[in-house]
Amino acid sequence: MVLPDEIIALAHQLADVSAAVIRPYFRSPLAIDDKNDHSPVTIADKEAERVMRELILQKRPQDGIIGEEFGREREDAEWVWVLDPIDGTKSFTVGRALFVTLIGLLHHGKPVLGIINQPVQNERWLGIGGQGAWLNGEPVVANQIDQLQAARLGTTGPQYLLAGAAAFARLSAECRFTSYGGDGYLYAQVASGWLELVVEEGLKLHDFAALAPVVNGAGGLMTDWQGKALDIHSEGRVLAAANPVLHAAALPFLLNAV
Amino acid sequence: MVLPDEIIALAHQLADVSAAVIRPYFRSPLAIDDKNDHSPVTIADKEAERVMRELILQKRPQDGIIGEEFGREREDAEWVWVLDPIDGTKSFTVGRALFVTLIGLLHHGKPVLGIINQPVQNERWLGIGGQGAWLNGEPVVANQIDQLQAARLGTTGPQYLLAGAAAFARLSAECRFTSYGGDGYLYAQVASGWLELVVEEGLKLHDFAALAPVVNGAGGLMTDWQGKALDIHSEGRVLAAANPVLHAAALPFLLNAV
Repeated sequence: MVLPDEIIALAHQLADVSAAVIRPYFRSPLAIDDKNDHSPVTIADKEAERVMRELILQKRPQDGIIGEEFGREREDAEWVWVLDPIDGTKSFTVGRALFVTLIGLLHHGKPVLGIINQPVQNERWLGIGGQGAWLNGEPVVANQIDQLQAARLGTTGPQYLLAGAAAFARLSAECRFTSYGGDGYLYAQVASGWLELVVEEGLKLHDFAALAPVVNGAGGLMTDWQGKALDIHSEGRVLAAANPVLHAAALPFLLNAV
Repeated sequence: MVLPDEIIALAHQLADVSAAVIRPYFRSPLAIDDKNDHSPVTIADKEAERVMRELILQKRPQDGIIGEEFGREREDAEWVWVLDPIDGTKSFTVGRALFVTLIGLLHHGKPVLGIINQPVQNERWLGIGGQGAWLNGEPVVANQIDQLQAARLGTTGPQYLLAGAAAFARLSAECRFTSYGGDGYLYAQVASGWLELVVEEGLKLHDFAALAPVVNGAGGLMTDWQGKALDIHSEGRVLAAANPVLHAAALPFLLNAV
């Protein structure tokens, strides 16, 4: 399907308004000095989601919204926006410009559009299923490397690998190297051809809804650990590969993970 | 001691010339498509060290040079420059603007000046022992958090923790959270007050020589795992803390690591 221009324009506006809210809080003492709140979710996170929700309500009041901070409304709508204003809150908290704003759009429960926006480095990836992916308007294409031994593997941190840690370790041993850190930024790296594999578990809908259209739009393949397309019901074990051949090489390591 | 202005000016010039060499290679297919070289050390790494060496030879031919790529010359000189043109080669290879150029200066074998330069984000930390530390000319001061439970811990990746992995895990369990990825950038985060602890092992002189003056110049304390000041003979197990009280709280976890 071809997405209406109005929807793509709104996705960009959501990225614009959230970036304007988030940017001043980055590396500010206010955002960092959250001693009373041991989770690094900041004021920026909530304010950014609020302005995005307001804009959706204003422009497309019939659409649903699922946000990390303020829950779900009209989640049975034909179109549902899925918002994670600051993915990579730890990166944000430690002053690292790798956190991203994730804006996903579901159509009948399936991710069809995603934006991965880094508001400090001013990097915006847009992916539209079946159409393509772009970084700041320029088309991006994932890498053609299809051998595990040549593939660079990424994941946010060992502490986020749960029951699948052993499976991950076996896959990691076959790859060229493993790079840690990154959250949603990792998937943008795959789309841009800089990284070939990402394996994570424990992701929520608001984490992966925006990522799959970007990876898949760039020619990659992002699924769950059973090889199934991600949708509103997926459980958050994800494999993103730069191309289907590499995906098929990596999948067996994850298929039977407990 | 007060460093001669001429030396500080040369340190900045080294950062300038290396950045100009490195920048065009970042995210270029040339830098990434190194299939015949499984280590991600790139052409940029060698070219940047070459231009830095030429500049030192031209401005201060009496000084020694120790570089990651082209070895040692006049290492017994009073002043010795220690160069790591791209620290964080994996970050560089996967398109992440967290790699840094490290420029250290030893006086009689002791680190007295360090630059941590990120040429894409245009972030330059300068530290001078006993004088201060600056990010792009603005003074930076490390954090006063002195309790482990409030401290954010960083390290580049679990695969770099060797015999000390168990000690690291025990320390990590006491901290607020652990952030992975970053290489030399982690130490700049400590200097800027965004992170409180970094623990790593296996570092080489060209890794840590530039880091200690930046951390210590910002009021932090960076030593080896015995609590000793780092010098030309140190073995590369390092602890960087935002302040001496926090350093004293973290050190016992590392003191008896095999």
